[in-house]
Amino acid sequence: MQLNRLDHVGIAVNDLRTARGFYEGVLGLEATHEEVIADQGVHEVLYRLGDAWVQLVAPLEPDTPVGKFLAKRGEGMHHVGYSVANVATALDDLRSVGVEVIDEVPRIGSGGTTIAFVHPKGAHGVLIELVEEGSGHREPGVRRARRST
Amino acid sequence: MQLNRLDHVGIAVNDLRTARGFYEGVLGLEATHEEVIADQGVHEVLYRLGDAWVQLVAPLEPDTPVGKFLAKRGEGMHHVGYSVANVATALDDLRSVGVEVIDEVPRIGSGGTTIAFVHPKGAHGVLIELVEEGSGHREPGVRRARRST
Repeated sequence: MQLNRLDHVGIAVNDLRTARGFYEGVLGLEATHEEVIADQGVHEVLYRLGDAWVQLVAPLEPDTPVGKFLAKRGEGMHHVGYSVANVATALDDLRSVGVEVIDEVPRIGSGGTTIAFVHPKGAHGVLIELVEEGSGHREPGVRRARRST
Repeated sequence: MQLNRLDHVGIAVNDLRTARGFYEGVLGLEATHEEVIADQGVHEVLYRLGDAWVQLVAPLEPDTPVGKFLAKRGEGMHHVGYSVANVATALDDLRSVGVEVIDEVPRIGSGGTTIAFVHPKGAHGVLIELVEEGSGHREPGVRRARRST
């Protein structure tokens, strides 16, 4: 098992427009990617910071994982994403030592990345997302689809 | 206001030895720094990942900010650290737009860094730590004080 890079911090917010007001208007960040990830039930905005990203995720519906997280815990840090060379291999490594995963097989994430989630139960309370290196195109300015504001 | 880099993700854990078993034994990370930060009431371990760090923090006593966090919410993500050129200037910028800060003046953090915390109340539920660029020496291998295992 090898994690190559801290890829992103995922932050759950109730309303993307309000949260963007803080991250862009107050913290001075510039959105580099925006996408509706229907599969995960979220609308995301990414900010590049160093070689990592800050990801804001707002739920598309209350009855989604992020919607339920917000109802239970309120806005705040939701998950940590780590870059790995190969998500399928990383999942095998984790299962081989008994770590519970959420995704048994890799799936497609934001920006066409290959991802999988690891259950917080076996990871000291942290929802971990594995992101395959080079599997997406999230470089600044490359994708601005659905930039709505 | 300008954030230069995602500096670290702070993760609150009950027991540092058990958590290190997961981060080192399962995820394969190597600790690059360990320190007791009496001022914050925590014992920390840092892992370098890309140009950022993962920071595990365990409380020195139950009656500390991290001890209370754990009692209320359990293990999990605790704060996000961002690098800024100057913490004092960043605090002024935040206060000037009405963002509530925890530290009115910068203080000394891990590895001799200059830091300040911003209240999650005004930051969409995220406890934010500002870290002054170049104010510490947390490069891999530089400090291994109190490495206990």
